[in-house]
Amino acid sequence: MTQTVFYLSDQTGITAELLGQTLLSQFELQTFVTQTIPYIDNSKKAYDAVELINRTAQQSGTRPVIISTIVHDDIKTILHTSDALLLDVFEHFIAPLEESFNEHSSLRVGKKHSIADKESYDGRIEAVNFSLNTDDGLSPKQYHQADIILLGASRSGKTPTALYMAMQFGIKAANYPITDEDMESFELPAWAQQFKNKLFGLKIDAQRLSEIRAERRPDSQYASIEQCQKEVDIINRYYVREDIATIDTTSKSIEEIATKIIAKMQLKRLQYG
Amino acid sequence: MTQTVFYLSDQTGITAELLGQTLLSQFELQTFVTQTIPYIDNSKKAYDAVELINRTAQQSGTRPVIISTIVHDDIKTILHTSDALLLDVFEHFIAPLEESFNEHSSLRVGKKHSIADKESYDGRIEAVNFSLNTDDGLSPKQYHQADIILLGASRSGKTPTALYMAMQFGIKAANYPITDEDMESFELPAWAQQFKNKLFGLKIDAQRLSEIRAERRPDSQYASIEQCQKEVDIINRYYVREDIATIDTTSKSIEEIATKIIAKMQLKRLQYG
Repeated sequence: MTQTVFYLSDQTGITAELLGQTLLSQFELQTFVTQTIPYIDNSKKAYDAVELINRTAQQSGTRPVIISTIVHDDIKTILHTSDALLLDVFEHFIAPLEESFNEHSSLRVGKKHSIADKESYDGRIEAVNFSLNTDDGLSPKQYHQADIILLGASRSGKTPTALYMAMQFGIKAANYPITDEDMESFELPAWAQQFKNKLFGLKIDAQRLSEIRAERRPDSQYASIEQCQKEVDIINRYYVREDIATIDTTSKSIEEIATKIIAKMQLKRLQYG
Repeated sequence: MTQTVFYLSDQTGITAELLGQTLLSQFELQTFVTQTIPYIDNSKKAYDAVELINRTAQQSGTRPVIISTIVHDDIKTILHTSDALLLDVFEHFIAPLEESFNEHSSLRVGKKHSIADKESYDGRIEAVNFSLNTDDGLSPKQYHQADIILLGASRSGKTPTALYMAMQFGIKAANYPITDEDMESFELPAWAQQFKNKLFGLKIDAQRLSEIRAERRPDSQYASIEQCQKEVDIINRYYVREDIATIDTTSKSIEEIATKIIAKMQLKRLQYG
């Protein structure tokens, strides 16, 4: 069956989306069509959303699902008039927290992602800038500021992982490529020895690496399975020889790679609270 | 009061963190200390987590809160033995979904962030690469592939916004700086006229811009309030003259800026489901 799911929020909708993704992934027999409606912060927008949802319900013949992180009761009341199944994060979780904290919730919209939390915001931006400035082996002089230095073959996922760690967790992640020229007997530059405790190796299956490279440069030596296998073998031996912690990125998402590195290296990261 | 909150997950913990952030932001009288324990995927790890949580409860004298997105019942049963208030996403929301979809949930861990969803994963990586390749006015020849081209003064938030749009939503976001040299009478290069429907202007308060620039180059002409005010005035007039849609980034988070641009420009984006 095809199910329609609406993510409704008075803010960005990102929390509702991730929550929904977690829940929907548990239902393998369904196909999902999802739509996010963010910034529903007045009655007009709420009525518009209900109209869209009810129209969808009629057209699809199945009952849509709403996953909502909307705070205000007057807007929620409007959403309750829709024909959808409404899963409301606040209804379920705010009451027990109020009791536990012995405080009434403020029902204030938008504190979460506001710049009020300026310190963590600035920390994330600073980390993103650091990761850009030290991308792909740039500016090793800045490594003393790095929280971590990712190593790996070209296209093994270093840059997206470093940027995600910076953006999501405020971690200063540099990355250093192990290039073809280094391959015969790869050694880090001498000065890198002082940062050995910050090094972390990305591994990848040669077949997958070849596929990724072929999207960029089809039919190239660079993308050939032989070349990829050779690089992967040398790099993996280097990690073992130098006793560098590693993760296999082959079948992992950026989120997984980033969070597993944080756990393994016990990195200090931005906390959400 | 200082409240301790644990985010527990059998995966990355990112969903639990964002959900927690949404909920905790409603309680203004509390101070929160949060800790994420990801990848709790066996009994041993669950017992270790409970021990840590109970020790924290004893030391702090307040009852900790657990926000959990753990799927498996046997692990959840262990968590229920802790002294904390357990808010469990699955307990509340899976049952109504099972009924609505007429399907038992698979209770399968990790499908969500797995590379199974390879298409959207590759789309995100491709978008990140595009945004890096077209950062700060690089490679305008690639603008025909762009979903959006962000304009703005130096340090107005173009790069983090573009990277976030790419990473989170798979949107190919280029960015083009309006620099000091352009200032006297800023005009986009002639060839940019063909991409006018992709242009989007970032605005920022001159005072905030001056603060941001001063962190990089203190006491510089570049960071002076006069210089920032001058640039902001010229750029804002340019946006009006050329009828370019804008957003004020001054007191907004990257998430807000990105999602509001998507809504305003009705950009096609990666869906979560």
